[in-house]
Amino acid sequence: MVSLSDRLLLGPGPSNPYPEVAEALARPLLGHLDPEFLTLLDETCDRLRSVFLTQNELTLPISGTGSAGMEACFVNLLEPGDTAIVGVNGVFGERMCEVARRCGADVVRVEATWGTEIDPQRLLEAQHASPHARVLAVVHAETSTGVENEIVPLRALADTDTLLLVDAVTSLAGIPVDVDGWGIDACYSATQKCLGVPPGLAPVTFSARAVERIRARSVPPQSWYLDLGLIGDYVGGARKYHHTAPTAMVAALHAGLGAVLDEGLDSTWTRHRTLGARLQPALADLGFTLVAPEGHRLPQLTSARLPTGLDETALRKELLVRYGIEVGGGLGELAGVAWRIGLMGHSARDRSVTTLLGALRELL
Amino acid sequence: MVSLSDRLLLGPGPSNPYPEVAEALARPLLGHLDPEFLTLLDETCDRLRSVFLTQNELTLPISGTGSAGMEACFVNLLEPGDTAIVGVNGVFGERMCEVARRCGADVVRVEATWGTEIDPQRLLEAQHASPHARVLAVVHAETSTGVENEIVPLRALADTDTLLLVDAVTSLAGIPVDVDGWGIDACYSATQKCLGVPPGLAPVTFSARAVERIRARSVPPQSWYLDLGLIGDYVGGARKYHHTAPTAMVAALHAGLGAVLDEGLDSTWTRHRTLGARLQPALADLGFTLVAPEGHRLPQLTSARLPTGLDETALRKELLVRYGIEVGGGLGELAGVAWRIGLMGHSARDRSVTTLLGALRELL
Repeated sequence: MVSLSDRLLLGPGPSNPYPEVAEALARPLLGHLDPEFLTLLDETCDRLRSVFLTQNELTLPISGTGSAGMEACFVNLLEPGDTAIVGVNGVFGERMCEVARRCGADVVRVEATWGTEIDPQRLLEAQHASPHARVLAVVHAETSTGVENEIVPLRALADTDTLLLVDAVTSLAGIPVDVDGWGIDACYSATQKCLGVPPGLAPVTFSARAVERIRARSVPPQSWYLDLGLIGDYVGGARKYHHTAPTAMVAALHAGLGAVLDEGLDSTWTRHRTLGARLQPALADLGFTLVAPEGHRLPQLTSARLPTGLDETALRKELLVRYGIEVGGGLGELAGVAWRIGLMGHSARDRSVTTLLGALRELL
Repeated sequence: MVSLSDRLLLGPGPSNPYPEVAEALARPLLGHLDPEFLTLLDETCDRLRSVFLTQNELTLPISGTGSAGMEACFVNLLEPGDTAIVGVNGVFGERMCEVARRCGADVVRVEATWGTEIDPQRLLEAQHASPHARVLAVVHAETSTGVENEIVPLRALADTDTLLLVDAVTSLAGIPVDVDGWGIDACYSATQKCLGVPPGLAPVTFSARAVERIRARSVPPQSWYLDLGLIGDYVGGARKYHHTAPTAMVAALHAGLGAVLDEGLDSTWTRHRTLGARLQPALADLGFTLVAPEGHRLPQLTSARLPTGLDETALRKELLVRYGIEVGGGLGELAGVAWRIGLMGHSARDRSVTTLLGALRELL
């Protein structure tokens, strides 16, 4: 049987869970219809509203990972033959296109080179050209490249018939995500990034007009498991059995959100920003080249090309085996030449940066 | 903030996790690409093969609850226009019909009254009438009624073009499930029943001919998240990133399967059978009426009508509040008149039966 180590998780996720989360996972299990669990679930949804900065009633954790959250948004909002405009500048924009296609949608791609941001004006122009598009979808924080795509200007979609769908998997609780203020109609995230909870749940939130669109569908969503009408009947108060809620993971999310809100969202954002600002120039000093351009560089997830001549795989393995530090390899065209370093959730600590830089100085 | 109790979970699931599972959840988290996690995942799949009694290569935990396992089977095996024959004698057979319909399938229902079993000959006759049906699906242990549907005679489907799909959510590790011996082509289960793990994962296994059918599809499955071709590329050895595996829950499943296999499958089945045989006549002595007929009565999940004149909801609440014992209410036509009592996984202990009967004697 495998023996398991204690890792410092500085990859693109999962991050190390908050201590409160580990405690929640160790508590005796509750059933999914236990009144105490239902109170805990209600509090979890309230806390999600606080973290998403929204009043949206339909706000809950989907029982799957972040990719299930993505799929839940598309299968509920799209019907066959609908048009979806998707911003693509990395793996997750690409994934959105594939998920939308499998819903029978016509996909309009708005592309930018990997490692650069998508100009929001180009997205708005695509919407002008396809005014009947049902959804315009964009990734806020591209985990594959460390690039932040600007969402605020897309607020203009509120005056159109097109819903704004945002992937906040790596951004939520790491950098500001203002669902109501930015006019976001549907937003999904994941637990294992800046929320500091193990992977397994996907928080989602839907605006009133998104809910109206879902209610007005001509055919039910192709997924029964991710059907928000049915899930909402369980989470939202009617308590009608849909599927067995993953009670241990919901308790963990409840605790992680508690840790974030006890610290305060502003402080959490500041912590992530400060640590990114400490790590990134230090990496440059060590000879790394940052992938994302200044101004669109995520603090919580840094993509950096290694100094020339270094064996990416061997160095990453040494970091893991000798120091127990996990960083991520590059994806796509960055595979083998870049790393992705996360400072997210409970892993976003001064000590993490000191440890990583110390280890790198010893190895390089 | 809600304060949380320690429950004896004797409902239809979740059951109390094995102590080894709680320990696994308390361990430091691993990343989904950590070599140690990948070894743990491989061992988990091997252990699933042992518990499913199969050599099937495509055997893995789906990152969602049992209902996601159901949906994974249908979306991968069915294409629009296919015929699916479904046995319906409770909530979960009904759910299968709905999931199959959402895949665009024509559904042929073979019904039996709730609380009775489905005659396997009727299922085989339906297949004779629709020989081109792609799938014949049946629930082994109907959690809504406590009825066992016989699977063995359906082995005859191996000589036809119709795949045998079995729901083993409540049966796996509670009563014999012999995937290879019974010629099952696709089987799904859930962690929170007789495996003694919190809810959140759905073990699935697919025969070689089911895998061939999936490979020969003319269109990709409508779900990207549940696409077994893509998931298999991560779990099966290529380690190609699909979604972030829920590493804490996989570690929990690994531990739960370890507990089951250390005890031995035969002993686990005997334990469940013995305890059901102790509980059921004792309930009858207390004035309850067992729903499922002798010979098709599950030992691990007993559905029983309450003695006339008792307030089902009030009694169930008293059991929960005063003793911390959870039992389940009836579903569908059994709502308000029956209970569902689970003795599953770690909850399947002599002490559980003694405690429940003692509390009932005090309350009645």
